[in-house]
Amino acid sequence: MKVKNAFYAQSGGVTAVINASAAGVIEVCRENKSKIGKLYAGLNGIVGALREELIDTSFESDDAISQLLHTPGGAFGSCRYKLKKYEDDVTEYERLIKVFRAHNIGYFFYNGGGDSADTCLKVSQISEKMGYPIRAIHIPKTIDNDLPFTDYCPGFGSVAKYVATSVREASLDIESMCASSTKVFILEVMGRHAGWIAASGGLAASRKGEAPHIILFPEIPFYREAFIERIDTTVRQKGYCVIVASEGIRYSDGAHISGSMQRDAFGHQQLGGVAPTLASMIKQSTGYKYHWALSDYLQRSARHLASKIDVDHAYATGRRAVEMALEGKTSLMVTIEREKGEKYKWYLGEASLEKVANMEKKMPRNFITKDGFGITKKAKDYLKPLIIGEDFPPFKSGLPQYVKLKNILTAKKLKSDFHF
Amino acid sequence: MKVKNAFYAQSGGVTAVINASAAGVIEVCRENKSKIGKLYAGLNGIVGALREELIDTSFESDDAISQLLHTPGGAFGSCRYKLKKYEDDVTEYERLIKVFRAHNIGYFFYNGGGDSADTCLKVSQISEKMGYPIRAIHIPKTIDNDLPFTDYCPGFGSVAKYVATSVREASLDIESMCASSTKVFILEVMGRHAGWIAASGGLAASRKGEAPHIILFPEIPFYREAFIERIDTTVRQKGYCVIVASEGIRYSDGAHISGSMQRDAFGHQQLGGVAPTLASMIKQSTGYKYHWALSDYLQRSARHLASKIDVDHAYATGRRAVEMALEGKTSLMVTIEREKGEKYKWYLGEASLEKVANMEKKMPRNFITKDGFGITKKAKDYLKPLIIGEDFPPFKSGLPQYVKLKNILTAKKLKSDFHF
Repeated sequence: MKVKNAFYAQSGGVTAVINASAAGVIEVCRENKSKIGKLYAGLNGIVGALREELIDTSFESDDAISQLLHTPGGAFGSCRYKLKKYEDDVTEYERLIKVFRAHNIGYFFYNGGGDSADTCLKVSQISEKMGYPIRAIHIPKTIDNDLPFTDYCPGFGSVAKYVATSVREASLDIESMCASSTKVFILEVMGRHAGWIAASGGLAASRKGEAPHIILFPEIPFYREAFIERIDTTVRQKGYCVIVASEGIRYSDGAHISGSMQRDAFGHQQLGGVAPTLASMIKQSTGYKYHWALSDYLQRSARHLASKIDVDHAYATGRRAVEMALEGKTSLMVTIEREKGEKYKWYLGEASLEKVANMEKKMPRNFITKDGFGITKKAKDYLKPLIIGEDFPPFKSGLPQYVKLKNILTAKKLKSDFHF
Repeated sequence: MKVKNAFYAQSGGVTAVINASAAGVIEVCRENKSKIGKLYAGLNGIVGALREELIDTSFESDDAISQLLHTPGGAFGSCRYKLKKYEDDVTEYERLIKVFRAHNIGYFFYNGGGDSADTCLKVSQISEKMGYPIRAIHIPKTIDNDLPFTDYCPGFGSVAKYVATSVREASLDIESMCASSTKVFILEVMGRHAGWIAASGGLAASRKGEAPHIILFPEIPFYREAFIERIDTTVRQKGYCVIVASEGIRYSDGAHISGSMQRDAFGHQQLGGVAPTLASMIKQSTGYKYHWALSDYLQRSARHLASKIDVDHAYATGRRAVEMALEGKTSLMVTIEREKGEKYKWYLGEASLEKVANMEKKMPRNFITKDGFGITKKAKDYLKPLIIGEDFPPFKSGLPQYVKLKNILTAKKLKSDFHF
């Protein structure tokens, strides 16, 4: 029988290092030509599989693939498309298997977060049921760091480094000017449900008392009075106050603090989010001059400041996924494990997708200080190794150089298009 | 007569490289101990001189001073304090001269933008009039790049590199996801009156048609219809649209587009600024999913991504200021001059402060494309050399290491405090 081909897709929000995982997958496929035929990549993620829009990665040079190691974004396109529940609608899964069968695909590598872990599991299970078994391995990726059963998720370390660096730099700015100008600075960061990214801002402080002075986590209910009081105390003691706020912070009744308060002149809900809402509270309650920043996509695409260990992890998990499939494994996620001990050492492991799928890992309470405004030593010990090392991309004419792949689609084999 | 001491102060918003100018000033003073006694720095800028809060820089080690070359923020503190008009109130200037005389200060180095150029001139003129002549030299600094008579202002090159890099990186992110998710991305950048920073976002494109697709300048009146139409065309052609918007953009009647439209639930003027206002327009008119980012202080403190040529210029202008004073010059600003020709070559010059003070250099119209949404080749030729080269700070434990000076004040000599 002809050797099976493989399929790789990127899912959900992209990161500064997801392409390093792609490079790992592609390289191990190329090293095992006797066992794996072509590697196809889904154009715009799983949607590419549904539409039979399969990128033939064999057109990309080895050099281009190695440049994926330092290129942010999703090289083949990603998507926010969530497959329908198998229990409700089998057509999407049947279509996937049909496309995979048509292109002799026997390996499925899916690079994403919680939702994609579930899809990966279903592909493995349903393909088996349909008599066309596909080995499906999940490669973890999410800046939110909320996947269970892995010590951490590739993509997060680089955001953490970006946020910690930005907080450290901006704090020097505010400190310089606070005597006569801005006294409060807010950096809003991503993290709707889990406060990992906000927590990483805490690494900016090299000594107790240094900025950031307040971190707001989605895990901790927000109380306006306590928040304002802490700002006021900090400004009176230090002259200024730096805040890192997670986009997902909520009141004790569960309502998000952003969007709940402000409406524009047309009656539309305010678009600004958490930082301007907090800024408005600060102005009303204290009168302090404030500034705020919202990194948004900048934080998850800042490949120029990627964490070296994060790049290494992303690449290694991509490579390992293919090796696991070649070992006959399926329905697994590659995990990153941390050895016990003072010095950070890691190795790769695996976790059953049945356990992983659709589960969220929040910050443990003992990672957050009692007052709810900072991170503990436990959190710092966990976070610190994840931002270690620099891996600057090549620069040309003052700017980082990123690769653009050819992304040539292979000819369709199915007669019918899929509508969804 | 005892050799004169010198005074140095930082003024206005700080930059990623203003401390490199400080290092230049301090080093040349140290190299000329037979001609210059102590170098004092104003704690929090000129306010430190008024309050007689003078930092004795001789307590700082050579090593600490050399670390200023890679440390953002203002090492001695800066301020947003503008001296009263001499015509209206002479007391502040008289106090300055009194403090300088008490500390035997004969050299005044002022590191800032337009306002500080004016102050610098006044110090020179009034000290002369008061029979205690002080040689006053201005060192240009402003991320806004709006000082006249210098090819460009130290501080701007690093912001330009940060903005161009961020646009390039975020654009890859949006491109990856646009088929199913965000189609429009807005990055709001600084620049209230001049569009230099917004223009630098245009460097992100290495080829015609690449992001950013729209740049909004304060120099060009904003028309909502034309803006929305351009977004729509771009999204239909490319699948997504990336916008760089200056915080200072206005309607044709001169009204700022931010703050004019939105009020919060308490009736306070909306705090978000330009990006959320544009986002709201986009949502209403097109329905496209959007994201926006606001770099705020991050852009001007991002020393981790400083332009090497900018660091060089900042350092060289600081050194040159002291040399000029030692040559007997006064009432001048150090300028950066560009040689004519293909290859970028620069040298230092000088400009009379009488001409410089309180004049603003806006973007020439021929730097902006006819449609008002982009930059021309002329602009690119001007901007490109300013972001060349990387000068990464030292990293430790994954984060940039920045120096904190001792900032020890010298004993006061005057009996009276100054109240203002």
